[in-house]
Amino acid sequence: MSDPRFHGIVPPLVTPLNADGSVNHAELAAHVEHMVTGGVHGVFAMGSTGEVAYLTDAERIAIIETVAKQVAGRVPVIAGAIELSPARVAEAGRNLIAAGADAIVATAPIYAINDQAEIADHFRRIRERVDAPLFAYDVPVRVHRKLSPRLLVDLGREGVIVGMKDSSGDDVGFRRLIAMNRDAGSPLALFTGHEVVVDAMALVGADGVVPGLANVDLPAYVRLWKAAKEGDYAAAIREQEYLNRLFEIVFVAEGRSGDAAGVGAFKAAMKAGGLISNATMAYPVRALDGEVLARIHEILRDVGYLKD
Amino acid sequence: MSDPRFHGIVPPLVTPLNADGSVNHAELAAHVEHMVTGGVHGVFAMGSTGEVAYLTDAERIAIIETVAKQVAGRVPVIAGAIELSPARVAEAGRNLIAAGADAIVATAPIYAINDQAEIADHFRRIRERVDAPLFAYDVPVRVHRKLSPRLLVDLGREGVIVGMKDSSGDDVGFRRLIAMNRDAGSPLALFTGHEVVVDAMALVGADGVVPGLANVDLPAYVRLWKAAKEGDYAAAIREQEYLNRLFEIVFVAEGRSGDAAGVGAFKAAMKAGGLISNATMAYPVRALDGEVLARIHEILRDVGYLKD
Amino acid sequence: MSDPRFHGIVPPLVTPLNADGSVNHAELAAHVEHMVTGGVHGVFAMGSTGEVAYLTDAERIAIIETVAKQVAGRVPVIAGAIELSPARVAEAGRNLIAAGADAIVATAPIYAINDQAEIADHFRRIRERVDAPLFAYDVPVRVHRKLSPRLLVDLGREGVIVGMKDSSGDDVGFRRLIAMNRDAGSPLALFTGHEVVVDAMALVGADGVVPGLANVDLPAYVRLWKAAKEGDYAAAIREQEYLNRLFEIVFVAEGRSGDAAGVGAFKAAMKAGGLISNATMAYPVRALDGEVLARIHEILRDVGYLKD
Amino acid sequence: MSDPRFHGIVPPLVTPLNADGSVNHAELAAHVEHMVTGGVHGVFAMGSTGEVAYLTDAERIAIIETVAKQVAGRVPVIAGAIELSPARVAEAGRNLIAAGADAIVATAPIYAINDQAEIADHFRRIRERVDAPLFAYDVPVRVHRKLSPRLLVDLGREGVIVGMKDSSGDDVGFRRLIAMNRDAGSPLALFTGHEVVVDAMALVGADGVVPGLANVDLPAYVRLWKAAKEGDYAAAIREQEYLNRLFEIVFVAEGRSGDAAGVGAFKAAMKAGGLISNATMAYPVRALDGEVLARIHEILRDVGYLKD
Repeated sequence: MSDPRFHGIVPPLVTPLNADGSVNHAELAAHVEHMVTGGVHGVFAMGSTGEVAYLTDAERIAIIETVAKQVAGRVPVIAGAIELSPARVAEAGRNLIAAGADAIVATAPIYAINDQAEIADHFRRIRERVDAPLFAYDVPVRVHRKLSPRLLVDLGREGVIVGMKDSSGDDVGFRRLIAMNRDAGSPLALFTGHEVVVDAMALVGADGVVPGLANVDLPAYVRLWKAAKEGDYAAAIREQEYLNRLFEIVFVAEGRSGDAAGVGAFKAAMKAGGLISNATMAYPVRALDGEVLARIHEILRDVGYLKD
Repeated sequence: MSDPRFHGIVPPLVTPLNADGSVNHAELAAHVEHMVTGGVHGVFAMGSTGEVAYLTDAERIAIIETVAKQVAGRVPVIAGAIELSPARVAEAGRNLIAAGADAIVATAPIYAINDQAEIADHFRRIRERVDAPLFAYDVPVRVHRKLSPRLLVDLGREGVIVGMKDSSGDDVGFRRLIAMNRDAGSPLALFTGHEVVVDAMALVGADGVVPGLANVDLPAYVRLWKAAKEGDYAAAIREQEYLNRLFEIVFVAEGRSGDAAGVGAFKAAMKAGGLISNATMAYPVRALDGEVLARIHEILRDVGYLKD
Repeated sequence: MSDPRFHGIVPPLVTPLNADGSVNHAELAAHVEHMVTGGVHGVFAMGSTGEVAYLTDAERIAIIETVAKQVAGRVPVIAGAIELSPARVAEAGRNLIAAGADAIVATAPIYAINDQAEIADHFRRIRERVDAPLFAYDVPVRVHRKLSPRLLVDLGREGVIVGMKDSSGDDVGFRRLIAMNRDAGSPLALFTGHEVVVDAMALVGADGVVPGLANVDLPAYVRLWKAAKEGDYAAAIREQEYLNRLFEIVFVAEGRSGDAAGVGAFKAAMKAGGLISNATMAYPVRALDGEVLARIHEILRDVGYLKD
Repeated sequence: MSDPRFHGIVPPLVTPLNADGSVNHAELAAHVEHMVTGGVHGVFAMGSTGEVAYLTDAERIAIIETVAKQVAGRVPVIAGAIELSPARVAEAGRNLIAAGADAIVATAPIYAINDQAEIADHFRRIRERVDAPLFAYDVPVRVHRKLSPRLLVDLGREGVIVGMKDSSGDDVGFRRLIAMNRDAGSPLALFTGHEVVVDAMALVGADGVVPGLANVDLPAYVRLWKAAKEGDYAAAIREQEYLNRLFEIVFVAEGRSGDAAGVGAFKAAMKAGGLISNATMAYPVRALDGEVLARIHEILRDVGYLKD
């Protein structure tokens, strides 16, 4: 059976930055506290939403230290070890565990061009070298490779990985993975990264969700998950539909890069909601402004997230 | 005008490994010596052919130290600073320059999802933070983004980059880049990474070539380049056609990963030719063997690379 | 509000062929009868599952004549007018309507390279020229373009299209489309083409489903849809999970083409189940055989589809 | 050896349209005459540049009749039979041959999802059913599949195809194809569709070129090809570089669709040069206008194509 520690709502933490681009550790700690007291079942630090790609190793380690210190064992801290290949992931992963993380997350190899057998060995080597639970992160839009359900379940059965986060956009594949995992005795905790279908994925057997949008409105996700777990799908759908109207903020910045439009919208909303003081993005991404920002504020008011 | 130091044959150095996967510095030094005395105009260390993705920062730095020491200033040492984003590339790049490199090479951001304006800022930030000539490396098969000719020439005119290596497979775009660069006063040194069209690219204005296959047969590339520079295209084509028959070794390992098939074939040929003692690939890639290896040896004999 | 005729289970009909590749109209009529008496709410003839790409115009028209005659008005007959561009789709569509179809289905332009504004005009022109309800078919794996939710809802509001079939694999986009369509007054009937997530899509608001697998086991889809409509999601999930184990037949033929593996598996199962006499595929696709076929039969027995 | 009729400059004919979108047969005939007397070695009608995707079967046939009548046997007429699958291509191909074409051109299957073995059978079936020389057309940007050099040479050796037009953008693959074809006894006539590298491709062994830009400035291509054939590469490069500056017109319409920007620019230039009276594009593509058109005219004057 999958590790009972890993389930439920595990937001990929946004990384608050100062205007000069440095990490705002005070606001990061406050945001973590807001998440933990708000009812998350875990936190995922240093994911794509946390702008991991843009941060140096020293910054990544300092962030995990802040997060782990603030969480103080109340929920698991899962840390993204986003690197190109097994030797590099393992080195990064050991540093993140030393900094206080409880588990690490790795993607398929990046930049390297490997087949499925090599990708399996990639995860095996990481697990051998990092003495901590390992999650696979399936994110083809960034890694340009899809992890097959068969590969994931086989790695689960071997004890190499304890779970996976699905950001592949392929809910058909995720459904297939749920079935295969169950047939294998459920070695994996299966998290969807798609914040707009949590009601449906909870219905069909997802163990948890990693919703970037929970950085903006955690209480709605907590209500959604609770309703779904209690079988009250009418209530779950109601919360989901509110969240989906809120999620439209990520589609406003047409013509901007994916990172500017997506994480940029989360930061803009968090600033509008008083959760962070500064919507600065990691260089070279520029924060959203002008008409795009005005339209995001309009959505925030329309859906009732902002009261005035 | 582009920096006169950067032109001609600049092989992307293969990284010789021991059977346990560690770097064989003695063979690396010997291979560098073979290249320099053989007539290269520069060396490109820590490119894709050098298995850069699989090596740790410490290994990368040690490799550049060995290469720079062996080259001893006879030709420029260009080092790949293959990292995800500007802050990380810059940090890696400074370390490589400190280790003895004369210039660095950076790709567009990896894993991060940026637009062309952000990609331009990415290169600008790297150049600000690393006090050395910077090359752009266009390799969409790994980075999943294409650098536009306009972007490259603009960065050249600004003094941000001194050249580019084209591994995009898009010779039409490369031709357009040659024209734009010339119209802009030739700020860039333009290298094709396509080892099978060097004769044609030399004809139409490439400043140099970065041929992985030159690790296997440098003398043929030296003869090819010399003939092309002297306008003896009949001789250049003759050498190119021999090299292209030799290059068929990279297509033998059907069904294997791109890195196994390509770099694996170079290493297999180098071992057969006595240039390295061991064809071990960086983990998790396995060296070619069995029927694939036999077929590669057959090609090496058929084209006359091996004498028996 | 969307047209009340279009909802529920609308299978994309397999096209039974004789051993020589000609259409077996007798078996086609029998299969249509099996579908209609089995409880479908409509039939979709000449979709990808019907091997539309491989059939001539004359064959397509004859098929619609057979289907429409057999259906005899009991449910709507929706016909795929799969062609490259508006003039060609419209011509094909008029012929299919003349042959008895009640509505037609068109994809985005194929082979032509158009932007979203041109794609909108494409659908507008088709609707002007064909006096029948028009569905949009979103199938990027074949057409290599994604129809945006905004485009679809705008075309619905204009009265250009009455619905869409989603075979994009993008359930996140489909969920967004459901919300936009509702906000616009529900001009569109929204069908998912993903047969493995019907329970979840029914929960969140799909109007219907176009399941290729219903050619193989219609009764299970009828029970599933009925349970979902009655709010008995436990029962719906049970049926879905059975169907998903059955659907594994399409993943058996690794290394074969998409059409051979997918439609080929449906035909193999239908033959095993006695629904057609011949699993011949349209030229140049070869029917599944050997170990692949044996493994499909094994799955059919394991899930209880075949009794011995 | 490849069929000696097929070589040299074979422009893909633009299809002149009237303002209402109907084909302007008088201008088509005049354009054909301009091409033939200008020195082409063949014409390719109903290619992508001829807007084949947008035209009905009746329009395609009428166009071939006009072209063949005007050419009157002076050079070969090659006609694109652009359809989804073998049965449909063959039917279309027979009609085009009956209308006067000397040879037909077919792509890999479209919309259908086939593997390389099925693609080979696709071409075999077409050849069986159409009693005329067959060319393969490699255009992944439209067909989303690449034809491998091995497949093409094997089909050439079998007598299935007599040549190929390469619009794949992959000059490395084209070079490999040239070598394989020569080793097989040159069964194929190899045409590059890349109008900006004709000098280089002629140097390395292309048999001909299918340059869309020759619709705009045929004399320059005739001079270029003559120079290359005589080994005067300095002159060939001079012509090519002029043509490449002219070709920049296709990059002006940023943000427009590929067909609008490319064929639209050719038509705009032809109208400016007095070769056609109307730059209308096939529906739903709108002709270029406004600032885009002004910029195209500026380029035409800058390079000396227009005199004032």
